[in-house]
Amino acid sequence: MQSFQPPRRILMGPGPSDVSPRVLSALARPTIGHLDPQFQELMEEIKGALARLFNAPDHACVPLPAPGTAGMEAAIMNLLEPGDRAVIAINGAFGGRMADMADRAGAEVVKVEFEWGKPVDPAAVEEALKAAPTKVFAFVHAETSTGARSDAATLCGLARKYGALSIVDCVTSLGGITVDVAAWDADAVYSGTQKCLSAPPGLSPIALSKRAQEAIAGRKTKVRNWLCDFNLLMSYWGGDGGRTYHHTAPINALYGLHESLVALFEEGQQAVLVRHARTHEALAAGIEAMGLKFLVAEKDRLPQLNAVIVPDGVDEAAVRAYVLDKWDLEIGAGLGPLKGKVWRIGLMGASATPWHVRLCLNALSEALAAQGFKADGPAGLAAAEAKLA
Amino acid sequence: MQSFQPPRRILMGPGPSDVSPRVLSALARPTIGHLDPQFQELMEEIKGALARLFNAPDHACVPLPAPGTAGMEAAIMNLLEPGDRAVIAINGAFGGRMADMADRAGAEVVKVEFEWGKPVDPAAVEEALKAAPTKVFAFVHAETSTGARSDAATLCGLARKYGALSIVDCVTSLGGITVDVAAWDADAVYSGTQKCLSAPPGLSPIALSKRAQEAIAGRKTKVRNWLCDFNLLMSYWGGDGGRTYHHTAPINALYGLHESLVALFEEGQQAVLVRHARTHEALAAGIEAMGLKFLVAEKDRLPQLNAVIVPDGVDEAAVRAYVLDKWDLEIGAGLGPLKGKVWRIGLMGASATPWHVRLCLNALSEALAAQGFKADGPAGLAAAEAKLA
Repeated sequence: MQSFQPPRRILMGPGPSDVSPRVLSALARPTIGHLDPQFQELMEEIKGALARLFNAPDHACVPLPAPGTAGMEAAIMNLLEPGDRAVIAINGAFGGRMADMADRAGAEVVKVEFEWGKPVDPAAVEEALKAAPTKVFAFVHAETSTGARSDAATLCGLARKYGALSIVDCVTSLGGITVDVAAWDADAVYSGTQKCLSAPPGLSPIALSKRAQEAIAGRKTKVRNWLCDFNLLMSYWGGDGGRTYHHTAPINALYGLHESLVALFEEGQQAVLVRHARTHEALAAGIEAMGLKFLVAEKDRLPQLNAVIVPDGVDEAAVRAYVLDKWDLEIGAGLGPLKGKVWRIGLMGASATPWHVRLCLNALSEALAAQGFKADGPAGLAAAEAKLA
Repeated sequence: MQSFQPPRRILMGPGPSDVSPRVLSALARPTIGHLDPQFQELMEEIKGALARLFNAPDHACVPLPAPGTAGMEAAIMNLLEPGDRAVIAINGAFGGRMADMADRAGAEVVKVEFEWGKPVDPAAVEEALKAAPTKVFAFVHAETSTGARSDAATLCGLARKYGALSIVDCVTSLGGITVDVAAWDADAVYSGTQKCLSAPPGLSPIALSKRAQEAIAGRKTKVRNWLCDFNLLMSYWGGDGGRTYHHTAPINALYGLHESLVALFEEGQQAVLVRHARTHEALAAGIEAMGLKFLVAEKDRLPQLNAVIVPDGVDEAAVRAYVLDKWDLEIGAGLGPLKGKVWRIGLMGASATPWHVRLCLNALSEALAAQGFKADGPAGLAAAEAKLA
């Protein structure tokens, strides 16, 4: 058994994205205690930065000590009790996961399903909310499995209209497109660190509204998941008075998240969003000029997650293997019904640069040529450069 | 908001322990994808190393993507279904936490309670197991809140005798004292990375027996905790055929765990245990020669967690503040009924060295003197040096 030296990789899959040297080097700073006064100051800074990033000044914002799925589980498990009605929109893999978790919470789950690649349709959701009193309405803002963006403002508005608490999965959206928790008036919003924040995977920032906190405080039964029980978590992360030991915070991972937030605010929140949009436009122009098609209609596309349809006769996995082997480039496969049918190309955080666009288009056109598919590589590159100019 | 530069700290609390430069530097290696073939090789190495460390060649061993408490929650939530009888031994904070979680799993919880600082008494456990058919018997091998060691071989034997599955909390024991899962014939054994493994907090290695896996596969209800559902986890971490996406593994944290395991096996498992025992003997001799007393009887003491009684008239918190301020030394406070009554001094992993013993005795005798307590510092240091010689 020897020390592990990872290969060079360019990460343009659905996450993790490339992690910048400054964030990597923050991870390696000496570990201090999780009850150390200076670590507690760091915790406060992270909470404040997350509130700013979510635009959730009145929400409780904390990073949960586990990957993005922990945010989903925390939201579902804290807000739902056995017998509660939960309406869950499913337009990809992650909506389906939410429904599975709500079932584990003992809720009466009403699934509102949509074709993968389409956004959540508010009219269908309203139909379901209208049918019976609903405790929670949950949906995915940016479906990582398809690259479709749903209209969070409208959907959260429907939840308010029908007296339901809203849960919004922003794992792939936060830091890549606008996330505005205050404007949405959303109740539980969570993300992950390994997408547009470009920190390593392992943490899940979450924002909970006062309404959500009151609902949790008023539960008749205990939250089924101890680690994500928000009552316990807030005694640990809460700013008022002493902290009650709950778990041991993942110190070094939090150094990394903190540094990624410092970098994001240095660049500027708006500038970061513009960079994502601009690199996506270049990549999309290149992809289409090469003769490939997107899964998602242009108006619903996420800049940071590009689902590209595998042309007939092309071996999906062979293309991914080629670009990994020849270009050290990771792109993602399709999930569920999209397995073998799409590639998922991420432009997230530090991976959303013109350099990544150029490299990806070159690698892809080479790999397609090796498969006998006549991709027009030069046209693709020219179209991308025109957008980048 | 600026980059965070942690202060220098010497970590001799109940965890995290000092993390060596080689582990810190492993954390900063470039992030690669969690489905990358080379990352999957790393996963296999980690699984193998954990099986070796636990001595659990026939168990499924994986690192859960969250702090040590996740191991506890995974064990409890996977093995218990609503209505199952669970006997939980409580001789400190962590046994109590297990009982709370078993309640959340819907189990009928039978608590067998002991004075804090005492080991779990097998006779009392047998009494409880004898009373009715029991699905799970759970206990803490090394109580981090008190520094007491319980007899895992005998306790696991009782579980077998009465047909119960055993859950053993080895958060603080693994890598500090003998953990021998095969000899114990234990069913679910978990640990954390931030204690005697001296990696940063954030991961929870767990070993599950074939019996436990069969019990999980045969559940009548879904595991309540999706993130820790072992059926799903094993499709992700399992070695057979393709992996099914579950969560995104915390890549860089796993680099750190891997490096800490490489370092441990380089030193030698037996040598590591001897180092813990030897530094403990020196610290204990020094503490006692200074005129202080231990909470736990000598035969039941953990080398890696030393609970020292605060003498009458000494301000517990002031002593901790003094050593932190003057010596950058972190020692731990008491929890629950021991709050204000003990200090918890860790000698874990990279913090179990003669240097740490000397520094701690010096700092402590100075801090006690500042409180007007007549600690015999020179006698303490001489007693420690005699053990270290």
